[in-house]
Amino acid sequence: MKKQGILHRDLAALIASLGHGDLVVVADSGLPVPPGVPCIDLAVTKGVPSFLPVLEAILSEMVVENATVAEELKPNEQIIEALAGRLKPVQLHFINHESLKTCCRQARAVIRTGEWTPYANILLYAGVAF
Amino acid sequence: MKKQGILHRDLAALIASLGHGDLVVVADSGLPVPPGVPCIDLAVTKGVPSFLPVLEAILSEMVVENATVAEELKPNEQIIEALAGRLKPVQLHFINHESLKTCCRQARAVIRTGEWTPYANILLYAGVAF
Amino acid sequence: MKKQGILHRDLAALIASLGHGDLVVVADSGLPVPPGVPCIDLAVTKGVPSFLPVLEAILSEMVVENATVAEELKPNEQIIEALAGRLKPVQLHFINHESLKTCCRQARAVIRTGEWTPYANILLYAGVAF
Amino acid sequence: MKKQGILHRDLAALIASLGHGDLVVVADSGLPVPPGVPCIDLAVTKGVPSFLPVLEAILSEMVVENATVAEELKPNEQIIEALAGRLKPVQLHFINHESLKTCCRQARAVIRTGEWTPYANILLYAGVAF
Amino acid sequence: MKKQGILHRDLAALIASLGHGDLVVVADSGLPVPPGVPCIDLAVTKGVPSFLPVLEAILSEMVVENATVAEELKPNEQIIEALAGRLKPVQLHFINHESLKTCCRQARAVIRTGEWTPYANILLYAGVAF
Amino acid sequence: MKKQGILHRDLAALIASLGHGDLVVVADSGLPVPPGVPCIDLAVTKGVPSFLPVLEAILSEMVVENATVAEELKPNEQIIEALAGRLKPVQLHFINHESLKTCCRQARAVIRTGEWTPYANILLYAGVAF
Amino acid sequence: MKKQGILHRDLAALIASLGHGDLVVVADSGLPVPPGVPCIDLAVTKGVPSFLPVLEAILSEMVVENATVAEELKPNEQIIEALAGRLKPVQLHFINHESLKTCCRQARAVIRTGEWTPYANILLYAGVAF
Amino acid sequence: MKKQGILHRDLAALIASLGHGDLVVVADSGLPVPPGVPCIDLAVTKGVPSFLPVLEAILSEMVVENATVAEELKPNEQIIEALAGRLKPVQLHFINHESLKTCCRQARAVIRTGEWTPYANILLYAGVAF
Amino acid sequence: MKKQGILHRDLAALIASLGHGDLVVVADSGLPVPPGVPCIDLAVTKGVPSFLPVLEAILSEMVVENATVAEELKPNEQIIEALAGRLKPVQLHFINHESLKTCCRQARAVIRTGEWTPYANILLYAGVAF
Amino acid sequence: MKKQGILHRDLAALIASLGHGDLVVVADSGLPVPPGVPCIDLAVTKGVPSFLPVLEAILSEMVVENATVAEELKPNEQIIEALAGRLKPVQLHFINHESLKTCCRQARAVIRTGEWTPYANILLYAGVAF
Repeated sequence: MKKQGILHRDLAALIASLGHGDLVVVADSGLPVPPGVPCIDLAVTKGVPSFLPVLEAILSEMVVENATVAEELKPNEQIIEALAGRLKPVQLHFINHESLKTCCRQARAVIRTGEWTPYANILLYAGVAF
Repeated sequence: MKKQGILHRDLAALIASLGHGDLVVVADSGLPVPPGVPCIDLAVTKGVPSFLPVLEAILSEMVVENATVAEELKPNEQIIEALAGRLKPVQLHFINHESLKTCCRQARAVIRTGEWTPYANILLYAGVAF
Repeated sequence: MKKQGILHRDLAALIASLGHGDLVVVADSGLPVPPGVPCIDLAVTKGVPSFLPVLEAILSEMVVENATVAEELKPNEQIIEALAGRLKPVQLHFINHESLKTCCRQARAVIRTGEWTPYANILLYAGVAF
Repeated sequence: MKKQGILHRDLAALIASLGHGDLVVVADSGLPVPPGVPCIDLAVTKGVPSFLPVLEAILSEMVVENATVAEELKPNEQIIEALAGRLKPVQLHFINHESLKTCCRQARAVIRTGEWTPYANILLYAGVAF
Repeated sequence: MKKQGILHRDLAALIASLGHGDLVVVADSGLPVPPGVPCIDLAVTKGVPSFLPVLEAILSEMVVENATVAEELKPNEQIIEALAGRLKPVQLHFINHESLKTCCRQARAVIRTGEWTPYANILLYAGVAF
Repeated sequence: MKKQGILHRDLAALIASLGHGDLVVVADSGLPVPPGVPCIDLAVTKGVPSFLPVLEAILSEMVVENATVAEELKPNEQIIEALAGRLKPVQLHFINHESLKTCCRQARAVIRTGEWTPYANILLYAGVAF
Repeated sequence: MKKQGILHRDLAALIASLGHGDLVVVADSGLPVPPGVPCIDLAVTKGVPSFLPVLEAILSEMVVENATVAEELKPNEQIIEALAGRLKPVQLHFINHESLKTCCRQARAVIRTGEWTPYANILLYAGVAF
Repeated sequence: MKKQGILHRDLAALIASLGHGDLVVVADSGLPVPPGVPCIDLAVTKGVPSFLPVLEAILSEMVVENATVAEELKPNEQIIEALAGRLKPVQLHFINHESLKTCCRQARAVIRTGEWTPYANILLYAGVAF
Repeated sequence: MKKQGILHRDLAALIASLGHGDLVVVADSGLPVPPGVPCIDLAVTKGVPSFLPVLEAILSEMVVENATVAEELKPNEQIIEALAGRLKPVQLHFINHESLKTCCRQARAVIRTGEWTPYANILLYAGVAF
Repeated sequence: MKKQGILHRDLAALIASLGHGDLVVVADSGLPVPPGVPCIDLAVTKGVPSFLPVLEAILSEMVVENATVAEELKPNEQIIEALAGRLKPVQLHFINHESLKTCCRQARAVIRTGEWTPYANILLYAGVAF
């Protein structure tokens, strides 16, 4: 087996292959995946797996330069705080949900979780390890 | 979206297509998948998602006629109890781990979870809804 | 087997994978499927299966936020009434048949039934379960 | 559109391609499909479409030389009678369900209906049109 | 075997799947098939099979609403007469060969015969069976 | 276009690729194609195209070292005579129909015609052009 | 085996499938193949096979209506003469190399030879055999 | 980008997907890959990349329970020592080269490096991380 | 372009991927390719390209440890001499043609040339470059 | 095995297939690969294999007419010097990194190395060997 980190074969391949500026979207169950954008479907059922553990697994292996969520998520202070904590020192940016959905068209992939929290979607722009 | 139950597209397709006697294996992260047997990989990272929530999601949509785990799992009373509770009235059968791995060769698919509990693998034989 | 609901593997996968706003078209046998749009072909022969039972099966698993049919269907009061009943509280919207065919280009899939009733096509826009 | 008969693209292709002695299985929702045997999935949900209308559609286009069902179906006089009527002059043969499942391994395809009647499976051996 | 009508698996599948307004082109051996348009190749060698028997087989199963040939075919009174006879009551329309070739880009498929008669190509627009 | 000979792309590719001893079967519409053996489907409808013109087209491009038909074809003197004439100086061999069907398992491909004459199947063993 | 003419399976299929006006490019080893245009690679090594024998093989089976080479080839009188001889009565046209490369984007395929002679590329436009 | 560890997408996917007892072979450039066994080709040219850095990268992410090399490698003390050092506490086992090649038939994949050292091949049997 | 050596993409890939003992067959146009063995088809037409230039191109890039031809080739002293010359110091071995054809079943690929010389087939067993 | 030069099957195929003016990009691990552009992934882990040995292997087999790197690489005199040395007599051109990334969209492929040096990416435009 793999010692730690990401166990999902497609997710592991995606992250290993990322280049500088590539966009990866970690989404709740309801985010529509634009035509032509690959979807790595991790969603099993409501809340399984939830958003944060998946994000953490990804952040454990991925260099993130930039992260963006929807303004509509701001009222959910709990998740905003959790995100800010895990992304430090990367700043969390905000755009409206419609713009976020438009950005998804350029994504290398949408990682679909079992999260059932509205707007629990984050755009992760890959940084460089060197 | 789907109202409830299984959200994973491949898992949903598998269960919808099951015939009487078809074998589905719900496994921990470490179970080797026999050559030629499809693997629906749900494993994200250690413990995510864990075995029981995935099993529950599957049992919410699948008619199970027979269920078998490895004798080596017996010392793990907590999980045995949980399994027995969720499978009622279906009786839990026991075979040794090597035999269980041999049975996996006939599986329609192995559902790989993020479980890191030794021998947390179960053979589910589909029953008939009529 | 699956306990209930949708038994068709591709239809089950489609509905499990739907995101908010995704469009699914349930059609009669004669609706032309735009190039590039997947077609889940359920049509066996004239009237088998008919439109409403397929729609019901889909509505049993799918969150629908918006539903649209062709104005040209209005004279068929029986089917309009049936649709309105099953879709409540979702309002049925009307556009002309040509516009409806244009919308189909954005569909995740066209579900082709055996219905031989003119204009028995409906656009179902997925809602969110949370 | 096609004027009449079979509307399902895969089913139409299968029947057009049949050679003398080829085996086609029309099954209920629960018949397990042997590994490697193609399945034309028509099952939408419980009872939709049911066994007989699908069988009729197939018999409208297919030359059948031989038909076999499971002995365990005999108690279901209604369906036996219906089958005998539609297959005339072809005689209905009986073998036990386990043997019938074994025969399915040689099938060109299993046509899966929405039927939820136990043992509602029939082996159709193609005849020659000349 | 199939009792009658179209025996070619791909042609049978195409016609079964046609929707209202779909375009099918029956062509001689020399018509260029536009990039991206599927070609069902029936051409064996010069004159085998010829245009009319293939057209007849298709018309035996396909509802045709509209039919168009090239003006350049008009001098071939024998084939024009044959076409008009078989298409009744559908009127035969005429456009120039270049426009006909442009229309082929929207075809569901080009059915290539062994015909070696200049301009022996026809655009068949599918009607509705109900 | 191609000047003459075989116009069917798959048939042309097959014959160009033949090696010494490769088996090609030219069949009527009813010959069952063994699993795993490619079928080049030329059958349009009853009698279209018929067996002999297809055979002739193939013989115009293929070196044949050996040809075998079913004994059951012998009563059809007309076709036997035609075959003998076209195959000269290659001798026509005879085996029973069941053995002929067994040989088909080793075929590079079965060429399916629209012939509706019982036992109108021939095994062609490729010779060498040098 | 095939008696004579083209032995390459893909080349044989291409030529058999050509329609009127289809473009086939016979090229030296260095011509860049535009994205999306299929390349039938015959090049083994420097000069093997050379341009003219490949062209001759193609011309033995293909009706050519129009042929074009690059003006930059004109100084190579030997090859111009050879081409003119083999193409008679078809006239050889000349355009500049850059325009020739642009035309290649519409080609059904580029046939790559082992020729190492600058500008030894020819555009062959298929004629009609009837 | 990925922060560290394996950057190769296929290698990352393979290791993430490993189950207990799965066999991975790290090989020099010359080891023949058995038919049907996937090969992850990392070999660029002679010595690039060499065996040990690739092995180290794999060992950084993979739990290894058992490791075996060919007896014929023993004279190469330098590499044996390096292997023993990196594999601790896993013992290095020895079998003859022919047996090692036979074992490769059961491998999940052969990882081909640019190593040009005779017998620089190692069988790695995956352990379990829990 | 590539500076020299093999220009054929598939042939270049094959040789780059060879492991010790892998079998490559260079054949005339008539050698039957066993089912499941890939064929790199270089044959354009009779004698184009011929056997020796293709063999030379392959020998320019491939380490050959062992070479075998059919005894039936011995009377062709010219080609035997040419082969012996090019293969030095590798000895040419002889087996009968039927055994040679049996060996081809284990080949990584059959390289088909345009050679029309009986028995002009050679088995090349890859050696190791270190 | 292959005697020398490039051992990677996909890289060997790419270079063998190059035409005049085709663009090949040799990149560090972090260069984003534009959608639709094939990536030959050689990256194993940080620095393995590094940029220059991969470039050398490619230059050993590829005719390069033009080479371009990012201006941002200029401060790295060591690598600039190394590049200039290996590319002689081809001049090294400079454009800014953003323009270089735009050029990559026209590449036949991006060759991804394990290099972790910023801007260690080079555009190689294929020349002609004759």
